[in-house]
Amino acid sequence: MKLAPERLRGLATALLEARDVPPTNALLQTDLLLEAELRGLPSHGLQRLPLILSRLDKGLADARSRGTGTWRRRSFLSVEGERGLGPVVMMHALQTMRPVLDETGIAIAAIRNANHIGMLAYYAEAAARNGVIGIVMSTSEALVHPFGGTQAMLGTNPVAIGIPSGDQPFMLDLATSVVSMGKINNHAMRGAPIPFGWAVDAEGRPTTDPQAAKAGAIAPFGGAKGYGLGLAIELLVAALAGSDLAPEVHGTLDAIHTANKGDLLILIDAAAGDGNVRSLATYLDYLRRSPPSDPASPVAVPGDGARKRRAATERSGIELPQPLLEHLLALEAA
Amino acid sequence: MKLAPERLRGLATALLEARDVPPTNALLQTDLLLEAELRGLPSHGLQRLPLILSRLDKGLADARSRGTGTWRRRSFLSVEGERGLGPVVMMHALQTMRPVLDETGIAIAAIRNANHIGMLAYYAEAAARNGVIGIVMSTSEALVHPFGGTQAMLGTNPVAIGIPSGDQPFMLDLATSVVSMGKINNHAMRGAPIPFGWAVDAEGRPTTDPQAAKAGAIAPFGGAKGYGLGLAIELLVAALAGSDLAPEVHGTLDAIHTANKGDLLILIDAAAGDGNVRSLATYLDYLRRSPPSDPASPVAVPGDGARKRRAATERSGIELPQPLLEHLLALEAA
Repeated sequence: MKLAPERLRGLATALLEARDVPPTNALLQTDLLLEAELRGLPSHGLQRLPLILSRLDKGLADARSRGTGTWRRRSFLSVEGERGLGPVVMMHALQTMRPVLDETGIAIAAIRNANHIGMLAYYAEAAARNGVIGIVMSTSEALVHPFGGTQAMLGTNPVAIGIPSGDQPFMLDLATSVVSMGKINNHAMRGAPIPFGWAVDAEGRPTTDPQAAKAGAIAPFGGAKGYGLGLAIELLVAALAGSDLAPEVHGTLDAIHTANKGDLLILIDAAAGDGNVRSLATYLDYLRRSPPSDPASPVAVPGDGARKRRAATERSGIELPQPLLEHLLALEAA
Repeated sequence: MKLAPERLRGLATALLEARDVPPTNALLQTDLLLEAELRGLPSHGLQRLPLILSRLDKGLADARSRGTGTWRRRSFLSVEGERGLGPVVMMHALQTMRPVLDETGIAIAAIRNANHIGMLAYYAEAAARNGVIGIVMSTSEALVHPFGGTQAMLGTNPVAIGIPSGDQPFMLDLATSVVSMGKINNHAMRGAPIPFGWAVDAEGRPTTDPQAAKAGAIAPFGGAKGYGLGLAIELLVAALAGSDLAPEVHGTLDAIHTANKGDLLILIDAAAGDGNVRSLATYLDYLRRSPPSDPASPVAVPGDGARKRRAATERSGIELPQPLLEHLLALEAA
């Protein structure tokens, strides 16, 4: 059964508000999850809500905190997340930084002890829709093995980059793992094998068995280069946020530990630069019209697929897995 | 024949000074090229010197300019490179930005119309050795095809990240192409085939013929994700530096056009952050000691190989291709 986004929005905000989350915070957390659903990224969608509710119930997430920012330098905001909900702390940091950009042109927030911030594109796009380049990085539990290694020692360490470029901002959002743990979970649920090269088992042997992969480690994307990029993000976040490194990180996938990963938000006022956002849009169209290797698959620009899926899902409604929907409805009735 | 680095340093600086390059600029340009040789990156080493000399002779490179920086905002330096030598303009920007960091914690320079900046790690490492995180990006001529595309429309768009971490900074330096055009040239010289997946020919067909690849396009690294990252760098640099996009870029590989690509330098004062550089070094050692997939190849951290090669080459001397050495010696005798 497909449900209208507004029905799910009401359901999720009510569940959050029932746990003392103020309406503005509840709307923000819900909007983040719904945006992921709409864009076809269910691993960052409403399937995260039961965990968020458990964490609120247990005091691992604070319903009200927006985090406390301290300006260490004129353009460097150090944020103690105080167990706040990820999107609440992130959007508060973004709003705190925005006026400083007029003076400095660039600013950074380094955030520790906030809960999971979900789909990074959400924040980068919020910046880019207002003429600001947004670069977001985040760390996680150890899930990825080093290039040439066999044990999970790095987070999936995603990065998102949003750049104003005409009507639609350019939006890149990628994990530095070859695939998400959510996708491996999905294969496990369906009993389907995973492609060779995605993961190793607990003994470090390449595997096509998703259950074995869940006990092992995911490969970095793009070999040594993707590993290097993921490791750079691991170090940048820990160095600036004072958050823990992957082997010590907990709390984005469980309802037991506080979340001790870190997040970075870099904002750059595009108006301070010498470029022309219209010329970027023209170039992106030129890429889209360039000859594809497969005539049936035109060249795409990152973000195109998500936008297309979003438009379709908004019309058709959101299809949640039946057990998830039943669980949420039961919580609503409780 | 292997030559002592100091002999080559004297040779290169003399050739530059003979073209009115002031001694400090000549030393800097030479040091950049020698560092690439020492680290086993000859594509960014002295083989670039004849082109630099030609560009000086023709007025495409200015011997004296360090570029003119304008502070658009407190932390945003817009640099008109004025055809200056790449490393001269870059290091001048770095020194201009350094004092601002004490006040702001982060700063960015956006540079246009400077000559080729060579190995990006040089600048990121100069920052990191002084307690500053350095992030460098650069664009180039169109050499890389989009993921799912067949025509060269993006630069090789490298990024380097240097992070203070104990005795040795963490150093990442990667092009967003799967391989450099220098490596394809090298296969062509040796008449060796290139691996499938590196490149397509002028008609967009996958090829193992390096000559055909030179007329075609190189693949992005890491599939759609590496393409996305390279494209983000393409747009970031153009948006902020006001430089041209790849299809219009010239002047890093020829002695005909002015260099109209762009460069970005982001500096972040690590001391403004809440992390501990010693804990980063401990974590990196933990990675190096983790179980490798091949017992003969221990897990490495980006920068380890370059440091090892540098130490060996400093002892053994630098082996230049005979034609290049003869060409440089002939220029010296002229």
